[in-house]
Amino acid sequence: MSEVVIMKEIKGLNEEYARKNREQFCNDHVLAVNVMGAPGAGKTSFIMALCDELKAHGISSAVIEGDLYSSIDTDEFIDAGYASLQINTEGECHIDANVVKQGYDRLNFQNGVVFIENVGNLICPAEFDLGEGLRIITASVPEGDDKPYKYIPMYSYVDAVVLTKCDLIDAVGFDTEYFKKGLRALNDAPVFETVAKVKERTTGIDKVAELIESKFKDIA
Amino acid sequence: MSEVVIMKEIKGLNEEYARKNREQFCNDHVLAVNVMGAPGAGKTSFIMALCDELKAHGISSAVIEGDLYSSIDTDEFIDAGYASLQINTEGECHIDANVVKQGYDRLNFQNGVVFIENVGNLICPAEFDLGEGLRIITASVPEGDDKPYKYIPMYSYVDAVVLTKCDLIDAVGFDTEYFKKGLRALNDAPVFETVAKVKERTTGIDKVAELIESKFKDIA
Repeated sequence: MSEVVIMKEIKGLNEEYARKNREQFCNDHVLAVNVMGAPGAGKTSFIMALCDELKAHGISSAVIEGDLYSSIDTDEFIDAGYASLQINTEGECHIDANVVKQGYDRLNFQNGVVFIENVGNLICPAEFDLGEGLRIITASVPEGDDKPYKYIPMYSYVDAVVLTKCDLIDAVGFDTEYFKKGLRALNDAPVFETVAKVKERTTGIDKVAELIESKFKDIA
Repeated sequence: MSEVVIMKEIKGLNEEYARKNREQFCNDHVLAVNVMGAPGAGKTSFIMALCDELKAHGISSAVIEGDLYSSIDTDEFIDAGYASLQINTEGECHIDANVVKQGYDRLNFQNGVVFIENVGNLICPAEFDLGEGLRIITASVPEGDDKPYKYIPMYSYVDAVVLTKCDLIDAVGFDTEYFKKGLRALNDAPVFETVAKVKERTTGIDKVAELIESKFKDIA
């Protein structure tokens, strides 16, 4: 059973904590990646595939997991041999920089990539800087191609967009061009097409790993 | 182009507005149905299929649409011949009873079912009573079977659970029994299995319509 941190929000101090986190990550040679997305977008499977890919490139990873309740996802990372710590927000709709600091301090991790899996939500997390070096949104193909038109703050906020469950593009009639058109009105972030659930059928993760690796080399 | 109401939140008054809405719906012989779910859960397609099914049973429907931005969904309902009004929250993560009242007043609708499509979010809408007579969560099969374990307030809050995109159960490996086990720890709400996107391949909507019809007969 994994360790769980219960989130107690301290209002108004987020920016200050985010600044401190950024400083800490820099000192520790850590690239922090804030992974956001709707519930069930496939954030956990995506991060797991990415950890495996980075490991093959000699880069170590750790994971801070944000959920309202449960430690289902953290247990999965620990089982796979990755340092991981669960944050439970107990009903709050996002994680903040302060609770990320608490989680990070307990990870005792340096010189690598720390993934922060945010709470499944396309709205509130876009208002809370965690001090991360890279912001990724995972958008699952079954969610539909109209999301950049509806969730404007989130799609404006991110540095990279990862389409997940792309093996279902035909089954659900996802129009990639329509999705990109909505995104391009807000943001010139790169778009990656991925499948991550089953290890043997993973696609597109190598391209995201290249982006992470290049960002990591910039700081480390 | 459809009419759009911009939401201005009035804090602390939600309960009072919800009470007034409930009274108004009762006077107007209206069953208000709050439809919640994650982004891309298929709320709009589900409501559209349900409107068509209820129409075939002689019950008329109208739709209040909640989104951060855009009027994509409202335009769809108006094109299909249903009274519909768009609420734009401009970044807010839920709709509240006051803005529902504003939207409802403009609909000028009586003696039927009003669907309120909430903002795509599994967290915040569970904190705002809208004065509705029935709360439905749409849970899309590609979101995964672990959601009742993670989004406890929402899955405790609803009167009925509608699984959507059930044609993908095998493709995504959704475990219905595991999902129900999580739900049953919180709630004895009925679970419906549906497919709604393409009219000719719609399944399970008739059973949900039966529930709505029986609730509507109770009040009307």
